[in-house]
Order: sequence, then structure tokens, then C-alpha cells
Amino acid sequence: LQSVTVFEQEHFQGKFLEFTSECCNIHNCGMDNIRSIRVESGAWVGFEHHDFQGQQFILERGEYPNWEAFSGSLSYHTEHFMSLRPIYCASHHSSRMMIFEKENFIGRSTELCDDYPSLQAMGWFMPQVGSMHVQSGAFVCYEYPGYRGQQYIMECERHSGDFQHWRNWGSHCQTPKIQSIRRIRH
Amino acid sequence: LQSVTVFEQEHFQGKFLEFTSECCNIHNCGMDNIRSIRVESGAWVGFEHHDFQGQQFILERGEYPNWEAFSGSLSYHTEHFMSLRPIYCASHHSSRMMIFEKENFIGRSTELCDDYPSLQAMGWFMPQVGSMHVQSGAFVCYEYPGYRGQQYIMECERHSGDFQHWRNWGSHCQTPKIQSIRRIRH
Repeated sequence: LQSVTVFEQEHFQGKFLEFTSECCNIHNCGMDNIRSIRVESGAWVGFEHHDFQGQQFILERGEYPNWEAFSGSLSYHTEHFMSLRPIYCASHHSSRMMIFEKENFIGRSTELCDDYPSLQAMGWFMPQVGSMHVQSGAFVCYEYPGYRGQQYIMECERHSGDFQHWRNWGSHCQTPKIQSIRRIRH
Repeated sequence: LQSVTVFEQEHFQGKFLEFTSECCNIHNCGMDNIRSIRVESGAWVGFEHHDFQGQQFILERGEYPNWEAFSGSLSYHTEHFMSLRPIYCASHHSSRMMIFEKENFIGRSTELCDDYPSLQAMGWFMPQVGSMHVQSGAFVCYEYPGYRGQQYIMECERHSGDFQHWRNWGSHCQTPKIQSIRRIRH
């Protein structure tokens, strides 16, 4: 079970809505803005635009009292938060993926099943990834080491876990740079 | 051994300096700005101001071609990067710390030895930590879940690993909010 409450004002004030499943457009639910968030259970992915488009950001269990401050810590200042959905396949014990040097699953490859704050420190010598296949569970991939920069949420149940080109990683993706990867757990 | 190269221009161009130990003021080394960074080995902590003051940010092995873009992904837009030092006690296998509900190591406590993208999801029911003791290794503590927001680098060799009040966590710290914690590994 997953549950999140979003508030129209900062510090969990004002009009609020609780979700236990996806919302493709917060405006259609009668809410103008999201200014604070409390994730009660599960892990969620928020999107800049409606219909799960634009910048992606993971929301894990906890309190986000000030969306504007939190948004300032994302890879770029995301002024909008228009849609969200739960991450269904996040599983503590079995997240596993393959990364490949080139697109279409060719070239050097390695299997990942842990958290990697620096892919280069664990032996992946380039700052980019060509393609990825998620065998089980879910991961967040980041542009920079230390879980910073652009975020791409990769789940085994989306696109059959196949991400053969950086253009499939998300509608906002502009480069193949990935330097840290971690499991989504909850 | 740890080594980092900092460049005066973006994309590893222009004047550069290599460091294998701390630098308390980049200006004293004849460099005006840092606009790109390549961490060759080890994990480093960068500081907003000289003499290791101000906002802290971990730099793990990998490439940071554009400091301005990376800085935009920190908890607030850090315009300056004035000093840096290696993190000596980062150890893959033995990072261990205690967190306490209240200051001065009292109240509820729990031991941490893994990565926790959400402290609340692992059973710590409040969004803040009162005090901390690092028994071994090194950790990064974050204001928000998912390793976002303000960063505090906690090492067993600093302050004997004792951080009895949030005012000791860093010169920029303004609240006891900590919602995710991870080991520093390299």
C-alpha cells in the first residue's frame, strides 16, 4: 500500500488531497499548486508536467514542508509539480539491472544490485551509460556522482525494463551522462 | 590515496590544480574560480567558504564538467567553492553511527550501518535527529528524504565522532531536520 498527502500551502497547511494511486493532472483534482508533501508510505515519482512528462523526482517516505526549497535541490529549479504516481515494483531485496556501454544493449556491460554513489569508483570507467535493462525492482539513475543532477526513475515494469537509448530515459533527458545509481527501497 | 583536479573553466579547460591533500583557500593557490572538477580517487568534501566554512558538499569519484549546473542541484545555489579536503576515514565495510532523539545523546536511539534513503521508512518516526555519534567511517546526512537538501558530512575522526547538537553539524546548519543518511564509500 502507498499513500501520499499533498497540500496547497507550505508546512502542511490549507487544502489537501490524499492519493493512494496515480494522479495525471493535479489541476483536474481542483488543486492549483503543491507547496508541501507528506509521503506516508511507499515511494512515489513526481513529474514537472501533467501526464507524467518532464523532469522526474523521487519522493520517499518523509516530510517535504516546503516544495520550493526542495525543488531548489533538484537538478534544475522545477517550478511545477503537476502529476505523480506510486513506484510499484520497488522491492528491498531483489533490485537488479544491467548497464551497457552503447545503445541497444551492446558493448561492455556490468550487473548492478546495490547502491553506487560513484559508478566510476566501482569500476565503470566512463561518465555515461549507453543503455540499461532492469531485470527486477526499481532504480534511480543520476547525472552526477553522489546522487545529484538529473534523475531518471527506472522500473522493471515500464518498457519491460528496457531502456535502449538515453532518449527513452525520460522526456527531459538530453545526455547519456549517468554517474551514480541507487535502488529504490521502501 | 586521494586526488582531485580542479579547473578554472568549464569542461576541464583552462588553468588547473591537482590536490592530494586539503586546500584551505583556493585564492591562495592562484585560482579565481572553480568551474569544473574531476575527482580521480577518494571522496572529498567541498566548502562554500575558505577554511572549511559554510555549505558542505560531498564530491565522489567522477566528472563534474559544469560547477554551476552541479551547484544548482545542491540545497541552495552555492556560488562559491573556496576550500576542500579529502575524507580520510571513509571505509566501505565498517561505517557505523548512532542517532539519538535529543541533544547530548539522550532519548530514543538507533544504530545505522547501511544507506537509508528514508529514515522514516526504516522506523525512525520523526523528521529530525537530536544528536549523533559516529563510531567508525563516515556518513552524509541530508535534510530531506532521498539524499536531498542540506548536507552534513559526519566523520569518526572529527570531534571524536561526537555531534551533540545540530549547531555542531556545520556552520550553515539551521535546523535539526535529517531525513536520509548514507555511508561515504570509495
